[in-house]
Amino acid sequence: MNAEIIAVGSEMLTPHRQDTNSLYLTEKLNELGIEVRYKCVVGDNAEDLTAAAKLAMKRSDIIIFMGGLGPTEDDLTREAVAEALGLKLQRDPQIIAKLEERFAKRGIKMSANNTKQADVLTGATVLPNSNGTAPGQWISGKYDGKERILILLPGPPNELKGLVEGECISRLRAKIPPQHIAVRELKIVLMPESQVDARLAPIYKTYPDVQTTILAGAGEIQLHLRSRKESQADAEARVEELAEKIEDELGDAIFSRKGESLEQIVSYLLQMRGMTLAVAESCTGGLLAQRITSLSGSSRYFLGGAVVYSNELKTQFANVPKALINKHGAVSREVAKALAEGIRQRCVSSFGIGITGVAGPTGGSEQKPVGLVYVALAGEEGTQVVERNFPGDRKRIRWFATQQALEMVRRALL
Amino acid sequence: MNAEIIAVGSEMLTPHRQDTNSLYLTEKLNELGIEVRYKCVVGDNAEDLTAAAKLAMKRSDIIIFMGGLGPTEDDLTREAVAEALGLKLQRDPQIIAKLEERFAKRGIKMSANNTKQADVLTGATVLPNSNGTAPGQWISGKYDGKERILILLPGPPNELKGLVEGECISRLRAKIPPQHIAVRELKIVLMPESQVDARLAPIYKTYPDVQTTILAGAGEIQLHLRSRKESQADAEARVEELAEKIEDELGDAIFSRKGESLEQIVSYLLQMRGMTLAVAESCTGGLLAQRITSLSGSSRYFLGGAVVYSNELKTQFANVPKALINKHGAVSREVAKALAEGIRQRCVSSFGIGITGVAGPTGGSEQKPVGLVYVALAGEEGTQVVERNFPGDRKRIRWFATQQALEMVRRALL
Repeated sequence: MNAEIIAVGSEMLTPHRQDTNSLYLTEKLNELGIEVRYKCVVGDNAEDLTAAAKLAMKRSDIIIFMGGLGPTEDDLTREAVAEALGLKLQRDPQIIAKLEERFAKRGIKMSANNTKQADVLTGATVLPNSNGTAPGQWISGKYDGKERILILLPGPPNELKGLVEGECISRLRAKIPPQHIAVRELKIVLMPESQVDARLAPIYKTYPDVQTTILAGAGEIQLHLRSRKESQADAEARVEELAEKIEDELGDAIFSRKGESLEQIVSYLLQMRGMTLAVAESCTGGLLAQRITSLSGSSRYFLGGAVVYSNELKTQFANVPKALINKHGAVSREVAKALAEGIRQRCVSSFGIGITGVAGPTGGSEQKPVGLVYVALAGEEGTQVVERNFPGDRKRIRWFATQQALEMVRRALL
Repeated sequence: MNAEIIAVGSEMLTPHRQDTNSLYLTEKLNELGIEVRYKCVVGDNAEDLTAAAKLAMKRSDIIIFMGGLGPTEDDLTREAVAEALGLKLQRDPQIIAKLEERFAKRGIKMSANNTKQADVLTGATVLPNSNGTAPGQWISGKYDGKERILILLPGPPNELKGLVEGECISRLRAKIPPQHIAVRELKIVLMPESQVDARLAPIYKTYPDVQTTILAGAGEIQLHLRSRKESQADAEARVEELAEKIEDELGDAIFSRKGESLEQIVSYLLQMRGMTLAVAESCTGGLLAQRITSLSGSSRYFLGGAVVYSNELKTQFANVPKALINKHGAVSREVAKALAEGIRQRCVSSFGIGITGVAGPTGGSEQKPVGLVYVALAGEEGTQVVERNFPGDRKRIRWFATQQALEMVRRALL
């Protein structure tokens, strides 16, 4: 079975706003074995919405509208779908009672326009919305001789998610042929996509029944494996078999097996070993510290660090000798090493990281071009320094440098 | 005139990838006075693409396909559009010659599948692509008695942008009635949307001919004003008049008039005054430093700072007396003040910022709940400390805290 997702809202036809709900919804549909065949954005316009509903009923098995169920004049999804399907709307006194109760609880008198949220399509099942005022609606049956399911959902993400998980998934599962799907997501850091594909293609091509997707981005590669079988055990076994062969080939280049981020993996490993970390950042300007501390509980293993943009601060906060900077330059293997060792000493941490480089777009030279970055990791067993030339713009170079740093910590902890 | 944007690619029908090109394209179309009426995503499927093209030719004046012009078997846009419009595809020897030249320059022999990129729709104008192999195509004329423009563009963003700006905008401008549009974008920091709207609605409602959009997000509010008139001067005058009234009402709560970010504005002001900044961050963990250093040239005014997660480091890097932390707790007005003053002293900067708070989701207490943040700004004229209770999750609380800090620097520099 295939689905069509229609996002409703004129703001999503401007340069400023985008539909993101459909990514979540697609994931949930895929888990049920339903593929998304079309995605559309339609404005708050009765004629356009009616046309979109008519078209979708012709070409798709499952049609999901998101948005346009609110109380304002702009909220037209109910009316447009009624028009397209030749159905009536009936005001449901039970929904009105619930709406009034909801407003009363907050000590607000319900304004009259809210009653239109109680309009229900003839034959529709009302899907109660515990996170908002507009309930969802579900219609299934024959349309022009074809089996169709049409679902109306509210646009705010928390309301949509509540209704999808609370009301839609079980209903969809009951309507569609039983599906048994197993998935795996493997992540690999700092390896070119072409190299990953060259090494893995001979393996995954022998599993034509497992859908394998390689996605590259932001200094890491994601491998999505998906198998659909008669039974869950078969699907799991098949996807597991391929995942194991891939792991045999790439070994510990794979850092995540459940979709975790690199900072999450480093967090697990540091906590398992009871070790701590401190960082001294020049070109990444706090990005590494920010990534590490984006996780709750990071204070257990992250002591802190210094953002040492100026040379004076490299000396003051990370004990880098002035003479060393004068001799080798701030962007050098030697200064990266001194930053890592200095910050480790100053913070009394198990590991110290030092990063220095040219993030660009200005500041590069022939000898030290934009993208040149030195990353050092100091630990009990000494200090290692890596020199890299990262491609791309300032944002990308800084991101890659933090990927490199986290990867060095991960490898040291394996 | 209205437009329909069709993004082509099965990967955009998965949970992992999204069309973002259409935001850029919408902005460029809006600047010409063209509204986007429909946006669709269609997979790499000949039948679906043909149906989408047929439908779009019926309902939209301008139809833009993005993607599906590459050399692989999956690239089907040309073939599908030819089928939908009843046109033929002719292989263009000039394009083949250019493709061969391009490959030869890189010392690569062109593989045979690339030649399909030279297939041109009968009557189409070829739009040369200097950033990639697939040229764009442009067709305009009557279709079922209606004037239509159909444009095929490649999917990679840099190729798309090159073709839009180099080939499409001038051609579109020549085809559509002359439009005179003036826009303004005003930004306001840390004010609730409801308050902004309550103060501004009585003003902008007297300008029904200026389209006013209020967008809230990430600790700031954007106001988009747009006027369309007979002449550019009229449009500019009208939008300027409204912008001035809004500025009179909100005063220096408006931090940006050209869409700049808060860190950009702070960057301008610091450089104008020849002043410098250093930061000591606890709960924001490097996010503030990272935002400031995301701008190229930030080393001119940003000296650096400390990420002081542990209490020891608050003392070591920002001179916060141990006794002060013991007495008031790490999350306190006093420690924020000491952090700001200490880091200013240590870095010898014009301004010092100190941030301490509870980012959550754990670590809150009745007295010091999640969301409580103290932000201090130390300068020549003394130190100010602000206490805030930010709503939302860890990410949001940290972001709001950095907005607060940057806003305090901005106000101090006005």
